[in-house]
Amino acid sequence: MKLYDADASGNCYKVRLFAALANIELETVAVDIPGGAHKRPPLSELNPLGQLPVLEDGAQVVRDSQAILVYLAGAYGGLAWWPAHPQGQADIVQWLSFAANEIQHSLCAARLVRKFGYALDQAAALAKSPGVLALLDKHLERHDWLALGRPTIADCAVYPYVVLAPEGDVELKPYNHVARWIERLEGLPGYLPKP
Amino acid sequence: MKLYDADASGNCYKVRLFAALANIELETVAVDIPGGAHKRPPLSELNPLGQLPVLEDGAQVVRDSQAILVYLAGAYGGLAWWPAHPQGQADIVQWLSFAANEIQHSLCAARLVRKFGYALDQAAALAKSPGVLALLDKHLERHDWLALGRPTIADCAVYPYVVLAPEGDVELKPYNHVARWIERLEGLPGYLPKP
Repeated sequence: MKLYDADASGNCYKVRLFAALANIELETVAVDIPGGAHKRPPLSELNPLGQLPVLEDGAQVVRDSQAILVYLAGAYGGLAWWPAHPQGQADIVQWLSFAANEIQHSLCAARLVRKFGYALDQAAALAKSPGVLALLDKHLERHDWLALGRPTIADCAVYPYVVLAPEGDVELKPYNHVARWIERLEGLPGYLPKP
Repeated sequence: MKLYDADASGNCYKVRLFAALANIELETVAVDIPGGAHKRPPLSELNPLGQLPVLEDGAQVVRDSQAILVYLAGAYGGLAWWPAHPQGQADIVQWLSFAANEIQHSLCAARLVRKFGYALDQAAALAKSPGVLALLDKHLERHDWLALGRPTIADCAVYPYVVLAPEGDVELKPYNHVARWIERLEGLPGYLPKP
């Protein structure tokens, strides 16, 4: 099973982190992002969006980090990470959307500008970030994990760009409950350190 | 089962559309968005993000249109709309992320500015929109439906802001395969017309 991967990408790290925690073996294939290899064939044929990560498992190709988490957890990770009942799946999908939308356009975008020089609106990304972190902090004040009272793929989808936020000049210090959740996640067996 | 709803919201329409297609009965509760009722208690307690739609099914509360689709399909809609196998779920989740990220920040954002006066970057939203539609068009050139070769919640998540795109000054005419997919979807039994 191949993961087309870039070490510094938080979206790729979501997948590597989950695979490490769930003890799933992945062959990572490093993609030359500065050289634009993800925007050209053969990778652009696997993922027309021209984004990483992409997972190839035999004939099955999955793009989008959230979808890859669902695939890996469903196929190899076990029900603890992604349950079979609709209540639990919906609870997790709420956080997958939060990762794809709110986090992507705040913490992640701020880092893309600051660290990699992407032409995105840094001021807008920085303006959104405290609200996103405050919301997360308030949730984590009453919950040890994002969903289902245990570690799930929701945590794997949200943690990477939160812990990498300081690389985008976003301060994590005001958010005590986020800090303790980060400690809990980093204490899980198999935890793979952030890039 | 209550859906906290706003008629003009594409995200709420995703849920109403799916419920109509899958013959699921919902009680809709109209929320005063211009008056900010979604940002205040009691609704802000159900959804701290201050967004609609929100679904309340007994003690179960689900926020986020994509998560509500997963919940309704899993609990009431049947496996045709949201299968139990990880390949099918991942195939659909790819499009749920596409709806939450790419479509939200292009077609949806352009409409929010044009129709409702939201303070978002209209130029950026309009600049992204043709790429999003071209990608969709290319996929629909080879597929009748977004995932699994049949209508699923992926179509219900993506269709609303595509068909409403002209309200944001985004032109749909160049995208023939998108137009035929729209016709197919609007021909499904139970189809609920767009707001």
